[in-house]
Amino acid sequence: MTQPAHGTHTLETAMRRALDLAAQGPAHGPNPRVGCVLLTPDGRAVAEGYHRGAGTPHAEAAALDAARAAGVDPRGTTAVVTLEPCAHHGRTGPCADALIGAGVAAVHVSVPDPHPVATGGAARLRAAGIEVTVGTLAADGEELLRPWLHAVRTGRPWVTLKLATSLDGRVAAADGTSRWITGDAARAHAHTVRARVDAIAVGSGTVAADDPALTARTPEGALAGHQPLRVVLGTRPVPDGARLHGPGGPLLHLPTRDLDAALRELGEREVRHLLVEGGPTVATALLAADAVDELHAYVAPVLLGAGAGAVADLGVTTVGDAARFTTRSVTRLGDDVLLVARRRAPSAECPDRPATQPATQPAQEEI
Amino acid sequence: MTQPAHGTHTLETAMRRALDLAAQGPAHGPNPRVGCVLLTPDGRAVAEGYHRGAGTPHAEAAALDAARAAGVDPRGTTAVVTLEPCAHHGRTGPCADALIGAGVAAVHVSVPDPHPVATGGAARLRAAGIEVTVGTLAADGEELLRPWLHAVRTGRPWVTLKLATSLDGRVAAADGTSRWITGDAARAHAHTVRARVDAIAVGSGTVAADDPALTARTPEGALAGHQPLRVVLGTRPVPDGARLHGPGGPLLHLPTRDLDAALRELGEREVRHLLVEGGPTVATALLAADAVDELHAYVAPVLLGAGAGAVADLGVTTVGDAARFTTRSVTRLGDDVLLVARRRAPSAECPDRPATQPATQPAQEEI
Ligand SMILES: NC(=O)c1ccc[n+]([C@@H]2O[C@H](COP(=O)([O-])OP(=O)(O)OC[C@H]3O[C@@H](n4cnc5c(N)ncnc54)[C@H](OP(=O)(O)O)[C@@H]3O)[C@@H](O)[C@H]2O)c1
Ligand SMILES: NC(=O)c1ccc[n+]([C@@H]2O[C@H](COP(=O)([O-])OP(=O)(O)OC[C@H]3O[C@@H](n4cnc5c(N)ncnc54)[C@H](OP(=O)(O)O)[C@@H]3O)[C@@H](O)[C@H]2O)c1
Repeated sequence: MTQPAHGTHTLETAMRRALDLAAQGPAHGPNPRVGCVLLTPDGRAVAEGYHRGAGTPHAEAAALDAARAAGVDPRGTTAVVTLEPCAHHGRTGPCADALIGAGVAAVHVSVPDPHPVATGGAARLRAAGIEVTVGTLAADGEELLRPWLHAVRTGRPWVTLKLATSLDGRVAAADGTSRWITGDAARAHAHTVRARVDAIAVGSGTVAADDPALTARTPEGALAGHQPLRVVLGTRPVPDGARLHGPGGPLLHLPTRDLDAALRELGEREVRHLLVEGGPTVATALLAADAVDELHAYVAPVLLGAGAGAVADLGVTTVGDAARFTTRSVTRLGDDVLLVARRRAPSAECPDRPATQPATQPAQEEI
Repeated sequence: MTQPAHGTHTLETAMRRALDLAAQGPAHGPNPRVGCVLLTPDGRAVAEGYHRGAGTPHAEAAALDAARAAGVDPRGTTAVVTLEPCAHHGRTGPCADALIGAGVAAVHVSVPDPHPVATGGAARLRAAGIEVTVGTLAADGEELLRPWLHAVRTGRPWVTLKLATSLDGRVAAADGTSRWITGDAARAHAHTVRARVDAIAVGSGTVAADDPALTARTPEGALAGHQPLRVVLGTRPVPDGARLHGPGGPLLHLPTRDLDAALRELGEREVRHLLVEGGPTVATALLAADAVDELHAYVAPVLLGAGAGAVADLGVTTVGDAARFTTRSVTRLGDDVLLVARRRAPSAECPDRPATQPATQPAQEEI
């Protein structure tokens, strides 16, 4: 158990701590990452907890257990929780009831629970006479839970599209070779992303061309602890000898070109975060359907001049209609660069130029 | 005059200071940027100088002048100079003679002068009984003078190719619109580069399509102090009403598609650093001729799916033969990213993958 931060907390510093705790939980899995800090009335943290993944205690229960294990009576404490305590009977009992039973005096929440089954925790706590506030550091709370929130709100996974391209936007040379456009550091990074998601998808064209394993591996080549579900999209069967049948996550072939249906199917299987690794046909179809939430573009300082492009026709004819993304981070990986960006709506007010970037963005920063 | 750095210098710290001084000179112009520090025998800097551009004193003369102006006799001092003192009679007398005349005891140089006319300074100094060393911080000295050294060694300018592309490597949408793929910060940066080079070139296709002014402007739209020579490559005449005839640097139309001849012509005109701003036809021809020394790739988080690519067929058929560059810097500019990279030779030993990056490069660094 992580040591509580020392000193007296304000609501905000306690929530910051709860968010840090939450982030220690696994990014993958059906459940949200949640952290909880219990404070005395004068603001001292007496216990804390976070959710370590499906089948383990929820954050609130973990914090209450930690308090009791330390000989602290949680009665009268304030629970600072990153997500609204659940009100449903899942593998564990409702957290709202656990907090009520423990006699906490107040509950402060960052993000309201959007889950159709679990929601209602705040109302239940209030009905029991407990003071409840919602919204402390809500932007940070939402950011931590972005894929999960998107998935429970829409019933479809958060889609990250990975592109690994040359500077002229190609994913393969004229002869179809694509190994390796990007370098070691970029590939190692891509494996850390695989180890964070619930599922990886490719189209059957990539299976036919590259025979990928779609495993999360360490730089030494060993399988990572968590292996995402491996998804193949397309009507062609997966060949018997394909590496996808080898060691790694479970294999799911969705024999369809209906990406909307495929995403709903994955949503029903509780896939919260889907990483799509191509190829161009599937990437184009997802972008054209506006189903890409986040781009991971690994760009290599290489020019090919010919070969398959990262995306084909998107129906865009003029610059103002381009699929625009907002950059979240830029990371240098050896000779390559990783640009992480999120979809933004076309700027209707001023169609011939992009919206100016928000003032909070770095205007110029070198790595 | 900049104040000398305080304290006692080693040869290396003095050379570092001389390099910093040199960097204060203008990056453009026919002459190299040079800095000079005069040290007493016990290592105190008594005077310094740098070259401020054609028609002004050379760095050594500036430092000797500064010493005399400060009432210091340069006799017996050690001159620490970033470039081998010249031995020719130009607009100013030979610097070697000036140092001999002033009675300096020793001269330490970073980079030997490769200039066919000016070279011989070290020999002249040695013949006069002065101790001369060459090579202190030579890598930094070479880096500072990269375009100039390249130009005097080859007789052709250092060529920086600018690309401003979408993530899928396009420089225009299907309807030919290219304003604006990149954002304000990237465009402002590109103008600071224009203000540093000797000349900007485009093909006649870009003149016809975009009617560019090719001026260096401030973010407020005013003309920068230095305006590069404006060069148009191609047989078509520049239209009478073109903005290229308006305010800005001189206009030079080279009515040829022979890029080798064009570069030699520019070299003879003492253009040391040429910035090529496209379009795709000229960029492709330069890359295919292996005449691009440095890439400035501004990449926007935008996908177009159709439209002109940054480069056309380069004769590359397989990934191992790609035109590879080595990244020198990655800079975030608002939503966009600028990747600066230098040409590297195809890695013959291991044709199916890039050479691993040197250990000095950051493996992973976020901006
Ligand atoms: N550098 C990289 O990042 C990267 C990554 C992946 C792939 N690649 C390269 O990409 C190439 C393969 O390209 P690709 O486009 O054939 O691969 P793909 O996009 O993986 O597969 C295309 C197949 O996806 C299926 N599909 C699923 N939904 C679809 C939809 N809505 N519309 C159309 N098809 C849909 C179809 O399969 P059915 O025909 O079976 O129905 C289609 O033939 C290879 O050269 C590979 O090396 C490069
Ligand atoms: N986003 C960007 O960074 C950017 C930058 C520039 C241009 N663009 C876009 O690029 C498009 C113009 O493309 P472009 O390819 O026509 O422009 P270009 O490369 O500027 O001009 C092509 C012309 O260059 C001349 N040329 C000189 N040397 C040549 C050689 N070795 N081989 C062939 N031609 C040579 C030829 O002129 P003659 O026919 O007169 O002999 C040729 O027609 C426009 O849509 C413009 O908006 C985008």
